[in-house]
Amino acid sequence: MPTLFRKPREIRNYLKSVRCESKQSIGFVPTMGYLHEGHRRLIRESKIQNDITVVSIYVNPLQFGQGEDYERYPRDLERDISICAEEGVDVVFAPSDEDMYPEKPLINIEIKGLTDILEGKFRPGHFNGVCTVVLKLFNIIQPDRAYFGEKDYQQLKVIQRLVKDLSLPVEIVPVPTVRDPDGLALSSRNTYLSPEERESALSLYRSFLLAEKLFKSGNTDANLLKEAIREFILKHPRVKGIDYVEIIDQDLKPVSEVKIGDRILLAVWVGNTRLIDNWRLGDAKV
Amino acid sequence: MPTLFRKPREIRNYLKSVRCESKQSIGFVPTMGYLHEGHRRLIRESKIQNDITVVSIYVNPLQFGQGEDYERYPRDLERDISICAEEGVDVVFAPSDEDMYPEKPLINIEIKGLTDILEGKFRPGHFNGVCTVVLKLFNIIQPDRAYFGEKDYQQLKVIQRLVKDLSLPVEIVPVPTVRDPDGLALSSRNTYLSPEERESALSLYRSFLLAEKLFKSGNTDANLLKEAIREFILKHPRVKGIDYVEIIDQDLKPVSEVKIGDRILLAVWVGNTRLIDNWRLGDAKV
Repeated sequence: MPTLFRKPREIRNYLKSVRCESKQSIGFVPTMGYLHEGHRRLIRESKIQNDITVVSIYVNPLQFGQGEDYERYPRDLERDISICAEEGVDVVFAPSDEDMYPEKPLINIEIKGLTDILEGKFRPGHFNGVCTVVLKLFNIIQPDRAYFGEKDYQQLKVIQRLVKDLSLPVEIVPVPTVRDPDGLALSSRNTYLSPEERESALSLYRSFLLAEKLFKSGNTDANLLKEAIREFILKHPRVKGIDYVEIIDQDLKPVSEVKIGDRILLAVWVGNTRLIDNWRLGDAKV
Repeated sequence: MPTLFRKPREIRNYLKSVRCESKQSIGFVPTMGYLHEGHRRLIRESKIQNDITVVSIYVNPLQFGQGEDYERYPRDLERDISICAEEGVDVVFAPSDEDMYPEKPLINIEIKGLTDILEGKFRPGHFNGVCTVVLKLFNIIQPDRAYFGEKDYQQLKVIQRLVKDLSLPVEIVPVPTVRDPDGLALSSRNTYLSPEERESALSLYRSFLLAEKLFKSGNTDANLLKEAIREFILKHPRVKGIDYVEIIDQDLKPVSEVKIGDRILLAVWVGNTRLIDNWRLGDAKV
């Protein structure tokens, strides 16, 4: 069983001796819990690369906006801990809100061109919440490596830039998105979906295959691809709307001419559930 | 002689072994160089409380605004290193701009109610520059304690809040302002002052004594005290203007009724030199 810590001070002291006395490297997997196969991949990657693997389980209120799904976000700490045990996680950190935020933070962190577009535009304050909690967790855990899924692609880019801009002594390791056999990207939010909604949610993945096919057959006009994606997704009965479909380069800048390695990012409402997904163009055999 | 490091990576590796292998505590004094007695006090305090004292010497371009004194800010690394040697500093970190900012940071850090008032209002972007460089230095040095002068009082409060909001594993130690025998608060910028300007610059300290006297004799109206300070300072020939005179409480909130422990903060132009100073009310025997 992993050792469970609730208090920042206690895990900090424990890891201090791990780090110094036994000179072990620390891998860190920050999560909001309700762990799925995607999280397992992060954990396995960390287990390969580090002596000790720490998983944090914390639904961070700061990254949810007014009217978002903070209250109903799925939580099951007991199940999460047993998954961590199965995966051989060494330490679980599951702090309370009071321990993480004894006072409401006054800090606001923005990263120009990264936190103010796409998710940042549709979820104002979201990335401030993400950056704040990630910095706090990094400062508490002080890991050598931290693992982030490509599923939250913009978040990954934001964290990578945060690390660079602040000279954080941690290596960010991206881990590919895990999908169900039918293509749905794993997300704790998938539990919100009814069977009919889940069927419509498959349109996200299938729109990527469509775009990939168009790209492979010579269509490099981003607008054409985005329009095809939109049209395809909106045909599905439970799709309530699209927040954005964008094709961006390595620096998260929208492109007009698509090239290999550019990425489709999208956010779609299926019923009352907001799903995000992304796809790197030019790799897949379609 | 202190060991001199130029490269973040090298000092980081060196201090890693200090921290872990010899289990020594690290005190850190961040400076922009051109060291004076104020810096010496910070260093001495660190020497008392820690096994190893690290001084950084870096004129951080990011905290200077357009048209400010970045170019003419006094620099003398050789002299600084010999002062560090005199004080028994163990390690000096003097990075180049290229090493600190291989790319221009995209991050913007604000702390509501702290970075947007007083200095932050008159020097837009200043505290973002301060917060960014301090976080970078903390992440490179990873000190147990860091020493900041009360001279830059708002900066001290901003850093304290940064540490709290981000759960930084460092203790911030405030060190009282050091003054010349005639009361002028020590600052590297005092080198800009002509003898006549220096004489007018004494009005800052003397206005504090005046306010203290008024307060001690029962005047608790902040506006009355501020007006008396303004009037007194503006009488001096080389004073070109006042950016602000404010009286604030522990949380940096302006007060209308003054009580013991509140602080006067001010910024005054003497010739082409902008000086800041502050004063805690109710302590001094005047």
